[in-house]
Amino acid sequence: MREANAPESPRTRRDLLAMIGTVAGAAVMYEAMTSLGHAAQSTYRGPIRLEGDARGASVLILGAGLTGLVAAIELRKAGYKVEVLEYQNRAGGRCWTIRGGDTYTELGGATQRCAFDRGLYFNPGPWRIPYNHSAILDYCRRYGVALEPFVQVNHNAWLHNTHAFGGKPQRFREVQADFIGHTSELLAKVARQDRLDGEVTRDDREALLAALQRWGALDRDYAYRESLLTSERRGFARDPGGGPDGAPKLAGPLDMRELMRSGLWRYLANGMLYEFQTTMFQPVGGMDMIAQALFHALGPEVVRFGRKVTEIGQSESGVTVAHVDARQGGEPLTSGADWCLCTIPLTVLSQTKMAVGPRMRAAIDAISYDASAKVGLQFRRRFWEEDEAIFGGVSYTDLPISQISYPSSGFLSGGKGVLLGAYPYGGVHAYELTALPPEERVRRAVEWGAQLHPRQYREEFETGISVGWHRVPWALGCAGHWTGALRDEHYADLCAMDGRLLLAGEHASHLPAWQEGAILSSLDAVSRLHRRVVGG
Amino acid sequence: MREANAPESPRTRRDLLAMIGTVAGAAVMYEAMTSLGHAAQSTYRGPIRLEGDARGASVLILGAGLTGLVAAIELRKAGYKVEVLEYQNRAGGRCWTIRGGDTYTELGGATQRCAFDRGLYFNPGPWRIPYNHSAILDYCRRYGVALEPFVQVNHNAWLHNTHAFGGKPQRFREVQADFIGHTSELLAKVARQDRLDGEVTRDDREALLAALQRWGALDRDYAYRESLLTSERRGFARDPGGGPDGAPKLAGPLDMRELMRSGLWRYLANGMLYEFQTTMFQPVGGMDMIAQALFHALGPEVVRFGRKVTEIGQSESGVTVAHVDARQGGEPLTSGADWCLCTIPLTVLSQTKMAVGPRMRAAIDAISYDASAKVGLQFRRRFWEEDEAIFGGVSYTDLPISQISYPSSGFLSGGKGVLLGAYPYGGVHAYELTALPPEERVRRAVEWGAQLHPRQYREEFETGISVGWHRVPWALGCAGHWTGALRDEHYADLCAMDGRLLLAGEHASHLPAWQEGAILSSLDAVSRLHRRVVGG
Repeated sequence: MREANAPESPRTRRDLLAMIGTVAGAAVMYEAMTSLGHAAQSTYRGPIRLEGDARGASVLILGAGLTGLVAAIELRKAGYKVEVLEYQNRAGGRCWTIRGGDTYTELGGATQRCAFDRGLYFNPGPWRIPYNHSAILDYCRRYGVALEPFVQVNHNAWLHNTHAFGGKPQRFREVQADFIGHTSELLAKVARQDRLDGEVTRDDREALLAALQRWGALDRDYAYRESLLTSERRGFARDPGGGPDGAPKLAGPLDMRELMRSGLWRYLANGMLYEFQTTMFQPVGGMDMIAQALFHALGPEVVRFGRKVTEIGQSESGVTVAHVDARQGGEPLTSGADWCLCTIPLTVLSQTKMAVGPRMRAAIDAISYDASAKVGLQFRRRFWEEDEAIFGGVSYTDLPISQISYPSSGFLSGGKGVLLGAYPYGGVHAYELTALPPEERVRRAVEWGAQLHPRQYREEFETGISVGWHRVPWALGCAGHWTGALRDEHYADLCAMDGRLLLAGEHASHLPAWQEGAILSSLDAVSRLHRRVVGG
Repeated sequence: MREANAPESPRTRRDLLAMIGTVAGAAVMYEAMTSLGHAAQSTYRGPIRLEGDARGASVLILGAGLTGLVAAIELRKAGYKVEVLEYQNRAGGRCWTIRGGDTYTELGGATQRCAFDRGLYFNPGPWRIPYNHSAILDYCRRYGVALEPFVQVNHNAWLHNTHAFGGKPQRFREVQADFIGHTSELLAKVARQDRLDGEVTRDDREALLAALQRWGALDRDYAYRESLLTSERRGFARDPGGGPDGAPKLAGPLDMRELMRSGLWRYLANGMLYEFQTTMFQPVGGMDMIAQALFHALGPEVVRFGRKVTEIGQSESGVTVAHVDARQGGEPLTSGADWCLCTIPLTVLSQTKMAVGPRMRAAIDAISYDASAKVGLQFRRRFWEEDEAIFGGVSYTDLPISQISYPSSGFLSGGKGVLLGAYPYGGVHAYELTALPPEERVRRAVEWGAQLHPRQYREEFETGISVGWHRVPWALGCAGHWTGALRDEHYADLCAMDGRLLLAGEHASHLPAWQEGAILSSLDAVSRLHRRVVGG
């Protein structure tokens, strides 16, 4: 079977492993792979070690988001003098949680005061952590941030298209089971009628048929139809019960044609994306628990809050940054250091005077930021759990709200709850929602969401809050938007050190819009800076 | 489009709903469906109400598992005099958690003393609760049992076949992505070559192709091949990182032939089964938290522990049950009552003298119990999280251990951990494992599991414990095994009231082997008993 699995081009390590495998058997081979580091995939290799003497060098860090906090912590540990300038009056940047009593003023001046009940919260920015984001998970572990599972996929949540199935939402499990069942039946039919000739050998055909039967819940005749077998995937019209009258009632599959035309299949693979696969996490109590833990570890005296950077200058001997009071403006102060690590979003930076070369400038100006908006809604009771047995996860819709996500904690706790009532990302709906006044975003999120939860949305809604990211004064957008072409042209220039200054953040990573990208970029930047200092 | 979705036979309610839909639009229609109770599927309708005067009638309940505890609580509330006889010295039956310091003596006399560290535990019986098991979830809610998510599917766990891929385990996400990708490519190819004629119209073909492209991560040419797109499903050879050197390295798909022949696809749909779908739960701290909460609510004085039932008699006026000391035997005592609810497993009951008619007797004797065995293993550290980024979920193998399940709580907490090191269910491996002495089960579980985690299983294992269910003295098997034929012949007789006695338990439900079946059977039985008392 080796030729069937041979890589297209020879790879030294693979060849070596194949050889071990031939000689010593599979278990030894696998052990060898593990010890060769083949099984590990993250670029994160554990706590960073900055060896060598920093000789008292100073670094001015712009921005106290995760990128800036991590950099400040690691550089301080390595012996640097560190100062952080932050526009807001809190650390964390987009790692942000809104709770009852918090106020937020967006671009244009509209101020919202959050009226959530005690204990309830809403993450306007990042809200989940993939298992393969090793760096942020390790920072959580090392700094004592408790994590709990975040539920991405919920088989009992809804998939909704206003133009399909008469506008009635369908259960995820029904769409999933029926899509897999119908397509498996179709492929099995073709295979059995020998219409796969040329694609699959006769022997392999039998293996394929066995696989399709199992995968698709097909019956003995390779048909996908109403049966106990298919109800065990899609669910029942009445669930199995106890005693003499406990027999379940079956429910027939959705019509294949209508299912295909509904477009609801577009949501099925979401949970199979590398970054949405199980098991995802969230910090207990809100995403900003991470920022708070890092800020606490750094020490509050290192960060200067409420400072807006107006100009970044540099010479051969150091950097000078001018900054004003973020609210009142007024006369600028200046901060100086040997080096500058700038984590300010590119949207803001493209409007800031900076002494950098034309290539970095071009890179900064080239990257637009994705639009996105979120609405958090508080309801009188957790009706999604009590009435509909939906515990966490996401309902998707073609309405401008895009999705409704139910909280991943406090299951069955009774009382009130906050769900994510809208989260369009990219695309026109995100811009449209951002363009509305905050209270109008909330009002519409309730109106649209009522198409999925009609009675409860109308009867149980209490209060909401919304954030449109292009109107966040210190971010002016959600996250850096890279295309392949932009990356080819500008990414190296954006990441390259320019004199005594370098940039870091999710925008300077191959994981844009993820906190992991911010941290990995931060670790990369401080490593390069340190090499320059120690080596130069 | 209506004809395409029409049910095979007309159903009054559906017709009514279709009419509402036509006249008033989709949102109204859906609201009507909700209020007609169409959206809810469980047979559980909230807390049971036993109305009418029980007139001081007494009920003797045999067995203090979940079935007996629930019955005792509800009957007491309704005014009955209740006594419970229990073989063991604890309540809960198969709802059972073993912790450090616990001892367990199996049939044949072998005694194990659990040496787990403080805070670690192992559930030999039920260990997870589906979201659609409304009755047990409601009992947890009402009696204050804290629940947390149970992770069933883990995309980063292993699928393993000793005879495939040289014995090397494959990541779930790779097998899943590649299976879906390859089969989608195959079906798309056939569709594009017009070999689907007769199955799908030309118009529908376009919808099918669009769906397959999205679902299968196919490229513009409908091919599944190494790309950023497919790596976003199956994972990378090196993950995306930060800074100038952060570009990911791609990893090519598994060969389709080898994948089909490997049989690893057999595990892919497990998490799509109605009872294994997201979001599943487990009680915080161990499954027996449920039994403890119910026992506490009932009051300890109601249960008489350590009593083995030797004979169940009945007359027209009442029931008489003889029972001896479970350890020492000796002279029997007798307990009397007006009615008897017997929750003793059928395996035990078939060896017990009972004054019941031939039909119930035949039913009791006809049902065999599934075999299953579990092994819990404590390791020095949670290597599956630290080394392999596996957080909860299940690795599957064709080895006799069947699966390894990683704990769903305490993520990234460091320190020691207990995983489920073997759990064959039904089939020959379950019998074989049960037949071995306890310490041998543990030894082999470690040996076999080392094929999935070679280095860590050998270096980090500390202590284990095992339960083979056919050797559990008070259960003599795992759970009632029903076939369609057995159900047709015996189920009604098993559930029917025989004079003043009736049976209840998971075996008297359409949800065998689930706690939900036990509770629904219990509620059904007490309802019928109460109707008889009140009505007669």
